[in-house]
Amino acid sequence: MKPINVGLLGIGTVGGGTFRVLQRNSEEISRRAGCEIRMTVVADKDVARAKAVVGNAARVTADANEVVNDPEIDIVVELIGGYGVAKDLMLKAIATGKHVVTANKALLALHGNEIFAAARAKGVTVCFEAAVGGGIPIIKSLREGLTANRIEWIAGIINGTSNFILSEMRDKGAAFAEVLKEAQSMGYAEADPTFDIEGVDAAHKLSIMAAIGFGIPVQFGKAHVEGISRLTQEDIRYAEELGYRIKLLGIAKRKPAGFELRVHPTLIPARQLIANVEGVMNAILVKGDAVGQTMYYGAGAGAEPTASAVVADLVDVARMLTADPEHRVPHLAFQPDRLSDAPILPMGEVETSNYLRLRVEDKAGVLADITRILAVEGISIEALVQKEPSAGEKQVDIILLTHLAQEKKIDAAIARIEALPVVFGKITRIRMEALK
Amino acid sequence: MKPINVGLLGIGTVGGGTFRVLQRNSEEISRRAGCEIRMTVVADKDVARAKAVVGNAARVTADANEVVNDPEIDIVVELIGGYGVAKDLMLKAIATGKHVVTANKALLALHGNEIFAAARAKGVTVCFEAAVGGGIPIIKSLREGLTANRIEWIAGIINGTSNFILSEMRDKGAAFAEVLKEAQSMGYAEADPTFDIEGVDAAHKLSIMAAIGFGIPVQFGKAHVEGISRLTQEDIRYAEELGYRIKLLGIAKRKPAGFELRVHPTLIPARQLIANVEGVMNAILVKGDAVGQTMYYGAGAGAEPTASAVVADLVDVARMLTADPEHRVPHLAFQPDRLSDAPILPMGEVETSNYLRLRVEDKAGVLADITRILAVEGISIEALVQKEPSAGEKQVDIILLTHLAQEKKIDAAIARIEALPVVFGKITRIRMEALK
Repeated sequence: MKPINVGLLGIGTVGGGTFRVLQRNSEEISRRAGCEIRMTVVADKDVARAKAVVGNAARVTADANEVVNDPEIDIVVELIGGYGVAKDLMLKAIATGKHVVTANKALLALHGNEIFAAARAKGVTVCFEAAVGGGIPIIKSLREGLTANRIEWIAGIINGTSNFILSEMRDKGAAFAEVLKEAQSMGYAEADPTFDIEGVDAAHKLSIMAAIGFGIPVQFGKAHVEGISRLTQEDIRYAEELGYRIKLLGIAKRKPAGFELRVHPTLIPARQLIANVEGVMNAILVKGDAVGQTMYYGAGAGAEPTASAVVADLVDVARMLTADPEHRVPHLAFQPDRLSDAPILPMGEVETSNYLRLRVEDKAGVLADITRILAVEGISIEALVQKEPSAGEKQVDIILLTHLAQEKKIDAAIARIEALPVVFGKITRIRMEALK
Repeated sequence: MKPINVGLLGIGTVGGGTFRVLQRNSEEISRRAGCEIRMTVVADKDVARAKAVVGNAARVTADANEVVNDPEIDIVVELIGGYGVAKDLMLKAIATGKHVVTANKALLALHGNEIFAAARAKGVTVCFEAAVGGGIPIIKSLREGLTANRIEWIAGIINGTSNFILSEMRDKGAAFAEVLKEAQSMGYAEADPTFDIEGVDAAHKLSIMAAIGFGIPVQFGKAHVEGISRLTQEDIRYAEELGYRIKLLGIAKRKPAGFELRVHPTLIPARQLIANVEGVMNAILVKGDAVGQTMYYGAGAGAEPTASAVVADLVDVARMLTADPEHRVPHLAFQPDRLSDAPILPMGEVETSNYLRLRVEDKAGVLADITRILAVEGISIEALVQKEPSAGEKQVDIILLTHLAQEKKIDAAIARIEALPVVFGKITRIRMEALK
């Protein structure tokens, strides 16, 4: 199958991540896409920086027009950002019949209707999964996964910078200005943080999601936009006392008279799952009339999470260009002739930490016997809790948490411990997962 | 555009839901799909039940073969369940060149490889979003949304019945058998609950997700399957004390030597978002090397949530059959000539509850003045908290939570309250959302 050639405009953080992911996972990606996807040319004003990233793997040019006009290029990835040059180049790429992948939410929020119309007229597609929620496939979920539904509302934590600041204000009891400085020093907030902290970035993303969810044009200009810069420690504390958390939410809601479109700090019940989304993470809650509430959670920014969305769009276009329509997406995601025959491991080979509960005689030396058996099997103990015996009881519960150990070693240790005369009945074993 | 004709096999809970959603949202769905999707024939052994659901809107037959052989039918929806008749009919539908949509995880877990090969050979597609996680678009997210990633692991709460039982055991301190009975009486567990509580259903779903995530065949037979029936109240309590929750997880993990595939009760850190997924809800956590952790949350079962996934698959097939490839999915999800021109409401028309913080003079009558103004504006109060003044202070903070009220009324009330001589400075207003 002919490879798909990609040209990149702008190799900053996300561009570098995209290049890296395409390189590192090229095998995995071509097994899914059914063809190779290769980045053959990169345009960046800073040619030296671009060369440092791509080495000899792609041609580097300072002239973006060279990419847009290159007849060998199938897809142009626009990661320049902003409304000026990026818009011109995107429209030129469309005019020359190229598909476009972009992460540029600001541009789409302001000029999306015009850009999409141009793409449609030219018979090309503009993909923008990376524009909202970083690596979370929220655009795909809304456009394709929830098509059965009348969407009632969308509410999202869609700006990681402001969520990080709110999380820190709550955790550390610090003031807004102080946490903003910390966020800037950690690279979570830009030198000019206005778009993030004043809700503009969230409103860009919200206006795109609202369009897709409700079937309305992109209408950023009509959104109510309010940020977090005036929030105080007192409000965060009072909200907490009343059972709420304060989050900067982008909210789009269907009403009989029209649609609400607003970004503002919001008190939400602390028991809600989305209230517990902390730090730079994003989450979008979508209410559909059939499906009820669904939530999509993940990293909303960063080089590789955003690259994940850019590359997913590239695979989408590649599948469209090369596969038979009815097998655009292979049943099992990967091409049937490229499935792996790596084995499913037998359970004995599986490694987990373990929770063990034992009932033992309440006398000296019991713990020594048990820990010796674990040591012999090479199982190390993370925690051991001996419960107080009830009045008059001669038996106590012991809870053991182990470090990672192979299942077969745990099985062997359990059998040997159960055989001890001081141990009563069976040991309860429950596996543990840190989910990291 | 020619309508797409759908034939349904089996009109039980999910089949009824699918019929209902297609009818109720036909306008919304055809705006997205670009054509009408209509269910024209329904096969069910219980013809009377089927007729009661569909009325005159579709032909009803007791003979499933009639649907499978009907040349007018483009897509067959298989909602019979099980491995016997369902498999025969699905293969027949494929053989007659029809696309198939199914929710049958058991069948795909056991015979998916055979079914997908048959579909590929015949040039048709088998869609199965509803087979895992009900209405959560997890299949689409894995197959299309995360294609940039080397998937490292998948861990999911993918059986609502067992999650409901575990939530109840923890909340109410009740024993397994007792909660199981409750779940059965509420319709959350079947008369024979074996597949749900012994982890079989979760293992069916896990083996499908693992295949899609890792690019391996579906290998249900190799999964380790362990349910929740032996969990005790003590273990739930001890786990809690140690900072963990017990969840029935389906876990698929990439290891150097192969893949782990296992379903068992699992201790997970209580601070993890997925540890807080309660009741019949499902959630799937996916770790990719580029995107990091993403999570997908929603109703994993039920008539309309599952129907949401079935209908999304129908829209996918309809878009494939009728749209130009490059505009299979419209940029804004809906056909560009069918966007709605309903207005974005001005902020004054938006209704929310509100958190108001005021600093007032600590003297009698202040509250009366404030509540009178709110009453005049028609704003009712949900809660009012007066903070204790600090020693020697003559000023106190008042926190007011309002019921739903129009923004313009809140604005008016705030202006009038701020004008009171006993109120100091500006009122802080933060909007509230229940997210229901």
